[in-house]
Amino acid sequence: MDQFNAYINTHQERFLEELFRLLRIPSVAAQGRGIIEAAMIVRERLERLGASVQLISTNGGAPVVYGVIGTGPRTLLIYDHYDVQPAEPFELWTTSPFEPTIRDGKIYARGVADNKGNLMLRIQAIEAWLATQGDLPLKIVFVIEGEEEVSSGTLHAFCQEHADLLRADGCLWETGGVDIDERPTLHCGAKGIQYVELVARGAAYDLHSANAPIVPNPAWRLTWALATLKAPDERILLPGFYDRIRPPNATDLQALEQIPDTDAALLADYGIPAFLQGVRGVARLRRYLFEPTCTICGLVSGYTGEGSKTVLPNHARAKIDFRLVPDMTPEDVLHQLRTHLDTQGYADIEIIDLGGERPARSDLNAAVVRAVIRSAETTYGVPPIVYPTMAGTGPMYPLCQAFDTPVTSGVGCGYHGALIHAPNENARLVDYWQAMRWMGAFIPAFAAM
Amino acid sequence: MDQFNAYINTHQERFLEELFRLLRIPSVAAQGRGIIEAAMIVRERLERLGASVQLISTNGGAPVVYGVIGTGPRTLLIYDHYDVQPAEPFELWTTSPFEPTIRDGKIYARGVADNKGNLMLRIQAIEAWLATQGDLPLKIVFVIEGEEEVSSGTLHAFCQEHADLLRADGCLWETGGVDIDERPTLHCGAKGIQYVELVARGAAYDLHSANAPIVPNPAWRLTWALATLKAPDERILLPGFYDRIRPPNATDLQALEQIPDTDAALLADYGIPAFLQGVRGVARLRRYLFEPTCTICGLVSGYTGEGSKTVLPNHARAKIDFRLVPDMTPEDVLHQLRTHLDTQGYADIEIIDLGGERPARSDLNAAVVRAVIRSAETTYGVPPIVYPTMAGTGPMYPLCQAFDTPVTSGVGCGYHGALIHAPNENARLVDYWQAMRWMGAFIPAFAAM
Repeated sequence: MDQFNAYINTHQERFLEELFRLLRIPSVAAQGRGIIEAAMIVRERLERLGASVQLISTNGGAPVVYGVIGTGPRTLLIYDHYDVQPAEPFELWTTSPFEPTIRDGKIYARGVADNKGNLMLRIQAIEAWLATQGDLPLKIVFVIEGEEEVSSGTLHAFCQEHADLLRADGCLWETGGVDIDERPTLHCGAKGIQYVELVARGAAYDLHSANAPIVPNPAWRLTWALATLKAPDERILLPGFYDRIRPPNATDLQALEQIPDTDAALLADYGIPAFLQGVRGVARLRRYLFEPTCTICGLVSGYTGEGSKTVLPNHARAKIDFRLVPDMTPEDVLHQLRTHLDTQGYADIEIIDLGGERPARSDLNAAVVRAVIRSAETTYGVPPIVYPTMAGTGPMYPLCQAFDTPVTSGVGCGYHGALIHAPNENARLVDYWQAMRWMGAFIPAFAAM
Repeated sequence: MDQFNAYINTHQERFLEELFRLLRIPSVAAQGRGIIEAAMIVRERLERLGASVQLISTNGGAPVVYGVIGTGPRTLLIYDHYDVQPAEPFELWTTSPFEPTIRDGKIYARGVADNKGNLMLRIQAIEAWLATQGDLPLKIVFVIEGEEEVSSGTLHAFCQEHADLLRADGCLWETGGVDIDERPTLHCGAKGIQYVELVARGAAYDLHSANAPIVPNPAWRLTWALATLKAPDERILLPGFYDRIRPPNATDLQALEQIPDTDAALLADYGIPAFLQGVRGVARLRRYLFEPTCTICGLVSGYTGEGSKTVLPNHARAKIDFRLVPDMTPEDVLHQLRTHLDTQGYADIEIIDLGGERPARSDLNAAVVRAVIRSAETTYGVPPIVYPTMAGTGPMYPLCQAFDTPVTSGVGCGYHGALIHAPNENARLVDYWQAMRWMGAFIPAFAAM
């Protein structure tokens, strides 16, 4: 693989230019911006690689860039996405989120770690393979979508309509990187999600707060309604919420036992004295990976500027995500939430459905998982840490579990300080090149399984 | 008074120009903007009237414009303020809040109704008196401050240091106008206030919401803490909160009985099916004027933009005003709030004190009140509605009650649709000129009492 690695070194400058071009597109799915532009850049890059590419839009959604390259007895599905999270709050970014900047060996840009970096480095690694090793020893199918950050609204229909395009022996998921101790990690599952916005409404317009004794305040109604959703002991209070949970099995629990303890480093980095409920070690991991959540991601009502304003707001909004574990479904949670609010006297509070996703799991002993483990050990010099699943979410159910395709994250350019979904998202250059070298080891490992 | 009224008609254009010049200054006390500029314009206008004027800043606060004009056996104190509420949310204004615009006979601008309109029309009415009636029959003392909308932080010290400048036989308060049935109103008291901002903090930075099972969420902590402050039945839960309340006396209750029922018109205008707790008529008035409140004026945490963002916020903020009735004090409420949060397990939630004000009451039978009633009936052709007190707040305690100065609002350019503290604040031109004519009737009525 010396030639492969030399090729990467020789082409670093162009590879970064290609990445930066994609990072400059503010492809924020939640705001409907830059989607087509980003899809076009990805299509063009795959075509330059030599792949056969189609743009497939389903039900008017963001186009999936579908690409095929190589032949062989095995088929590898690679899933990535070209959309990113909103960059707000802009004022907390040291440099503009859509003007990638290198500082201290890190690339700062919205989406560089989630997921434009992995998207691009995987394509570039395959270029290096073709240029130095000859034909690919397997068939690679790319599914690169543009709605991942908004629960992949139309990918579900895409998967159902194009099942024939998606058959594979294993899938490499979008995420991947090294943990806080610099060890490569992999994850063989994902939580589901139900994202909602709750809206409480009051008078026809904002009033002087002198009217508070007699006019309903939607900020209070929302506060009281929220307080019925989760208790201060973290128990989620929707009736039936926990009923369909399938607890981790013996293999999962065994995998948790193998994961090194990073509690102290995490606590220090997050700047908190303890984890919720005081959990540590394996108990912390079990809670992190196998418990559902109900999270207030955003709250807004009335005056939020400097100093005081004595106003009685006429509406209040909360954004909430429920993360789901097997075998919960987003449909159940939506139904439970409506029923619960009605029962508690909050029938007036509107629920806006901002998307759902089923949880998914995969076999920890599948060929694709073993190939990732073997190749990661080769490239990184240490055995990777196997997480049975991840705390994050993606369309793993419709794309993989529905077709019984084994799936795992690979190693990518992620690391603990990547600040994904937050201001100053970044990726380290060393991780970017290392993840490309790992791809060079993974391709033959999976082909040979 | 024909000459007086003719003078007003002749000078309407200049009077509006003078008002607009003041309205163009964004003198938002909460944001520390435009304060000196506005004070300078007010000083200049009073000097052009012929008053002897001083700018007095206490403890570095916004200057009080203190002016004296006229002589006579009686002294009238006139209290107004040149600061305004924040104009946010800007996007809900039809025209720019600081570029006054006339549409359909109304002046639209932040502060036109609260309180730059009354401030200016009172000065202009005195100009008309001097030009057409000769010398004033009484001494008028102006106290025009610049921190009313942020609880008059330094006016308390001003009043203590300059007690000798403030002696008067009666005070005309800043507010005033006609009610939803177009009848002039007056109010002989004001609620107190304690304004606070509560801040809950979590991790060192915003995290991906996948961390929600293990990292504390300040949006949840704030929600739970808020829910301990007031119950869904509107009862405020701070221990001792209601202990010092002095109920309305027989005269107050008798005054409430005289106030015409405007329930249906108010409900229709506010667009709500019922008042809180279902109160109507005198019960609605009693609740409105004589009950303390705990009002969420603002809430903010995490992502508040379009669509979804899966973020675990690292801080959450609530702005809250407590409106106080006699004999509650802001100091008591601040202390009760801290103790309560500590007791309920929320010692980590910071309380930022954004200002307090004591409630105040005045004698309904004082000369200044009788003079307002008599002159209002003359100008408006109907007896005014006497509210024993108002639901709003101002520095009535330090400026009047501390010196036993009787006080009442006059008639001003306010009306039910003025949208004070809200977007599209406005005043009707007809009310502006009518309130000036009323001042022409009030001056001799009070001098003759």
